[in-house]
Amino acid sequence: MSNENYYDVTAWNIGNAHQDIGEVINSIIDDIKTRQTQTDINEGGKPGAVIYIPPGDYHLTTQVVIDISYLKIVGSGHGFTSSSIRFNTPQNEWADWHELWPGGSRILVDLTPHVGDEEHSAAAFYVKRDGNPRISSVEFADFCIDGLHFIGASDPENSYVNGKTGIYIASAQDSFRITGMGMVYLEHGAVIYNADALSIHDNFLAECGNCIELRGAGQASKITDNLIGAGYNGYSIYAENFGGLLVTANNVFPRGSSSVHFSGVIRSSITSNRFHSFYPGMLVLENNCSENMISSNHFFREREPWGPMQKYDNGLDDLYGLLYISGNNNSIVANHISETIEAQYIKPSGARPVVIRLVSGSGNYLSDNHIVATTEAANAQQIAKQSCFDTQVRALLTVDTLMPLDVTMVQVEKESLHNTILDSGSDAQVIVDKTVNAFRATPTPGM
Amino acid sequence: MSNENYYDVTAWNIGNAHQDIGEVINSIIDDIKTRQTQTDINEGGKPGAVIYIPPGDYHLTTQVVIDISYLKIVGSGHGFTSSSIRFNTPQNEWADWHELWPGGSRILVDLTPHVGDEEHSAAAFYVKRDGNPRISSVEFADFCIDGLHFIGASDPENSYVNGKTGIYIASAQDSFRITGMGMVYLEHGAVIYNADALSIHDNFLAECGNCIELRGAGQASKITDNLIGAGYNGYSIYAENFGGLLVTANNVFPRGSSSVHFSGVIRSSITSNRFHSFYPGMLVLENNCSENMISSNHFFREREPWGPMQKYDNGLDDLYGLLYISGNNNSIVANHISETIEAQYIKPSGARPVVIRLVSGSGNYLSDNHIVATTEAANAQQIAKQSCFDTQVRALLTVDTLMPLDVTMVQVEKESLHNTILDSGSDAQVIVDKTVNAFRATPTPGM
Amino acid sequence: MSNENYYDVTAWNIGNAHQDIGEVINSIIDDIKTRQTQTDINEGGKPGAVIYIPPGDYHLTTQVVIDISYLKIVGSGHGFTSSSIRFNTPQNEWADWHELWPGGSRILVDLTPHVGDEEHSAAAFYVKRDGNPRISSVEFADFCIDGLHFIGASDPENSYVNGKTGIYIASAQDSFRITGMGMVYLEHGAVIYNADALSIHDNFLAECGNCIELRGAGQASKITDNLIGAGYNGYSIYAENFGGLLVTANNVFPRGSSSVHFSGVIRSSITSNRFHSFYPGMLVLENNCSENMISSNHFFREREPWGPMQKYDNGLDDLYGLLYISGNNNSIVANHISETIEAQYIKPSGARPVVIRLVSGSGNYLSDNHIVATTEAANAQQIAKQSCFDTQVRALLTVDTLMPLDVTMVQVEKESLHNTILDSGSDAQVIVDKTVNAFRATPTPGM
Repeated sequence: MSNENYYDVTAWNIGNAHQDIGEVINSIIDDIKTRQTQTDINEGGKPGAVIYIPPGDYHLTTQVVIDISYLKIVGSGHGFTSSSIRFNTPQNEWADWHELWPGGSRILVDLTPHVGDEEHSAAAFYVKRDGNPRISSVEFADFCIDGLHFIGASDPENSYVNGKTGIYIASAQDSFRITGMGMVYLEHGAVIYNADALSIHDNFLAECGNCIELRGAGQASKITDNLIGAGYNGYSIYAENFGGLLVTANNVFPRGSSSVHFSGVIRSSITSNRFHSFYPGMLVLENNCSENMISSNHFFREREPWGPMQKYDNGLDDLYGLLYISGNNNSIVANHISETIEAQYIKPSGARPVVIRLVSGSGNYLSDNHIVATTEAANAQQIAKQSCFDTQVRALLTVDTLMPLDVTMVQVEKESLHNTILDSGSDAQVIVDKTVNAFRATPTPGM
Repeated sequence: MSNENYYDVTAWNIGNAHQDIGEVINSIIDDIKTRQTQTDINEGGKPGAVIYIPPGDYHLTTQVVIDISYLKIVGSGHGFTSSSIRFNTPQNEWADWHELWPGGSRILVDLTPHVGDEEHSAAAFYVKRDGNPRISSVEFADFCIDGLHFIGASDPENSYVNGKTGIYIASAQDSFRITGMGMVYLEHGAVIYNADALSIHDNFLAECGNCIELRGAGQASKITDNLIGAGYNGYSIYAENFGGLLVTANNVFPRGSSSVHFSGVIRSSITSNRFHSFYPGMLVLENNCSENMISSNHFFREREPWGPMQKYDNGLDDLYGLLYISGNNNSIVANHISETIEAQYIKPSGARPVVIRLVSGSGNYLSDNHIVATTEAANAQQIAKQSCFDTQVRALLTVDTLMPLDVTMVQVEKESLHNTILDSGSDAQVIVDKTVNAFRATPTPGM
Repeated sequence: MSNENYYDVTAWNIGNAHQDIGEVINSIIDDIKTRQTQTDINEGGKPGAVIYIPPGDYHLTTQVVIDISYLKIVGSGHGFTSSSIRFNTPQNEWADWHELWPGGSRILVDLTPHVGDEEHSAAAFYVKRDGNPRISSVEFADFCIDGLHFIGASDPENSYVNGKTGIYIASAQDSFRITGMGMVYLEHGAVIYNADALSIHDNFLAECGNCIELRGAGQASKITDNLIGAGYNGYSIYAENFGGLLVTANNVFPRGSSSVHFSGVIRSSITSNRFHSFYPGMLVLENNCSENMISSNHFFREREPWGPMQKYDNGLDDLYGLLYISGNNNSIVANHISETIEAQYIKPSGARPVVIRLVSGSGNYLSDNHIVATTEAANAQQIAKQSCFDTQVRALLTVDTLMPLDVTMVQVEKESLHNTILDSGSDAQVIVDKTVNAFRATPTPGM
């Protein structure tokens, strides 16, 4: 009797994990399949295996292809550090740095996508299996997937483009887990089609073009307790055609074109999250998103404070809505929404920014949302802003100097009907046709 | 010096873990007790141990009995797959399946309960210790407990009956943890008496008759971030005589006679969960449940869509209440509740379904609950429904065809007094004696 | 090729981990630094390492000093047991106890702070590194740090004073993780300066003078899903000058001078927690805390029920406010707040306790808070109260005998202006100047 289903990538006899961990893991998967061939020996037969990745640098030049259930790939360190800060530091300062790259149990994705390749061709981990049952209970835990460089034509390391994906799950699957992972400098972190009972929990997914993309369709899953922040041109959390998705307890920081973007998602929840963004469109519900619950979240939007990124945004203007809602019977209740921006940076110039915008659909219910809009004193921008961390210090220095900013707290377009808007803004702050929507103004304090 | 407190079940010299992991673990516990005998050597003495279960199939024919603190039993894979889908697939198709059974670090519970046995006799893990202090910090993590078969007299594999329990904790205990576990096809997943500071976190407990049962009494515990779904005749989450229980961030899917059932529970929280059910009585607060907080949850009830299960339900009719509340001073605030059902399936026939029902007690506070009730177009039921996953696809196909359904959004029985009902339904949708309850109707949009 | 970056403290060739794990870990860190010297070999170079602590008792007489990124220190058991209950049990009963001390992978902190030492001198783990980049991705997981004894001059083991700290992070840092840890009988659990993207998740931090202290400044972090309870004179959760902190899904039990104390914190969230306290000042927002979100929490305050601790409290009286709010534009929405206390224990005598108190600032938004205030029947106090667990049993026995207690549900001081108070108390229960604040009384049920 031995631990026949426990593998250490550094102890495997085929390939060299440091040179190509992809070859090693694929070889291990072959070994598992060679050994586990029968489907019903004494009510068992194919328990899968665990593959351990100790801390270390592991280049990946061969894509890992997973087509067996019950495979757990686990490391001992999510290994995040900010590559973005480093790439925006003059290179002549690097010699003094303690370390330059992410670490932990770290996979360096050396795949090179070519024009015309399928999107998944440069995924470090590619999961695909046809037939029955759906592939189940594959787990990724506690290691780092590093895409190394972005390579866009202009300002490459800030482009969030390199064609690389961390984990690409192409087949319908059940009960997968992604936990404790770090992902950095990938164009796509996790792309997952047709998820059922998926758990994405307690990960650190940042400085990726996109972090989490749930595509195709899906149900009964959770994205919980993660630290997440995508690039200015990508999704932090995206889901389409999903039912019963629970997005809770996440701290989603900038940039991210959006914090959460739902398309055709129904009966799902976005609760108790903290969202921070530099652009409008923090939350987008489009393509008939219906019966969703948005509650107890904190939304905060300010202007990009960091020099190297100030030239970028997500292309949306301040009339788009910080929260853009298209669909029926959604609930937006008991959220705090803060926006602070100087008048000169509002787009289009002179516009009154829109905070919650009901674009189309009917029967949405907004209640008890507290919206705080302010403008910074002009000289606040003079404070040095060298890193993400300074965002906070700057905010603390300036919060006392904030002046009220006039915004439209809720705007109900004429294509959106029969909504109920309660205690989410005063008469002057809400634009709504009261003949086809119910409205109760927030009582206004005397001044 | 060696890792004397680290055990691998496959490396132990007594028994054979694959044939009877129970004998092996009990023998390891004996070894720990033999070695750790003194209670205060240099302020230490009995640190406990960790027992590792690598991925593999492990039959359990001897019950594990735990009576030492600080024992951690840990595997490398929760190993869930749907046994229910397989058992409801014609057996002649199984030959083509990639695998037939759950996997990971999987314990196959071969215990056979006999008539007249005590309930715990067929528990895979039985925790019991008398005396002081309460047994503390036992941890179960990252393995699978599989009950294999249900054996009810009729339609056995769909009966959710086999007398087997995964983890049965009979003694008052402190600071236990159940994390990352998979449980499947057990009549009872985890039965825990007299819990204090218990954490049940990030598990996958599904296709069990009952999933989590907190019995006796208890305090200051949490059930968080789990994927849970019991059988049609059992509890997904049950607690009795508890104070300070936090149920948050769970995705509780069907079936489950209820999603959460509290009896005599006080000052506890059910927040930020996603609940999905096929029957009335999703949330039951009975036996004087008081001062509890129900907030920011998403409730969704529809009719059972899957053929093999359509003959079953929990026996309650649509007048029972989707949320059934008996007790004092509870808060039900800022929840989204969706119900969709065709008129022909409403019981009793022609009834107006009740969504929130205050049955007895006083001083309950309901506010800002958004209730969406719809009926599907008749032809929506024609869509093929072969698996749980189709629930979602069907929903996405039909959400556009939903028509409003007339329901009683809140019904306050005359035995329930002095409640406050705000913004949870219009005048016509709420049945309440306004002379003894406070009521403010949700403003109604013009049509 | 070998697992060169995996260390087991019991297998290291320098020192003896059971006698001084500090010497062993420092020696391992030296080894890592000796081996990992180059900052950019083939886009890698310094992956860090994992140090494993098997279950066992490990004395620490030498402080561990961490100055490398990507170090993970991990055990196999958080090992909590209540030292407080034991120290308050007559010593002649100890002989019958199964075990006397915490266990698991347990570090016994034998450091002795001397008068005049810097605060961090008696920290078991001290993290400090100057220069760039900030130290990143150090992880502490699944072990126990035990301070052994409190040593205050009077009633020493109940004094919560011993000068010892579990983890002290002195330098600005990024993406650290503290997960699955147990801490007990430390004057300070985790002290962390200048945190960015920190995760403190699923720990058991109790019977420490203070549990979590985020000092200096910080941003974009999360304290989630922990069981926490500090001493009567300390912080359970403290943060200062922070932006974007997410405190959610925690069960914070007594004692703790406060459950959460924020100083100068902005745009942060406290949602879906369960808080239990024996004193006023459960939640303190001071020094211009602004734009924070307090939602979906359950607050419960009662009198200390346990004899040995009844002589202690946090020194605040019942006019201080259970929730004390100083700052601007905060949201306090959809919380349940229970207070139960006998009239004879109210301080100052005869006072009407204040539940939510707005002390200074402006623009705060309170809505939909359900406040339940009761007084116990006098004979309820006769029930034996031998341990924390009896708190719950007592509560269950007495909840039926509770009588309403007259309290001020919201009190708005004249230094706090332009606030909005909705549905959080009746006219008689709210003290507010309606000429400078907006107020809507909760409708009152008929009696």
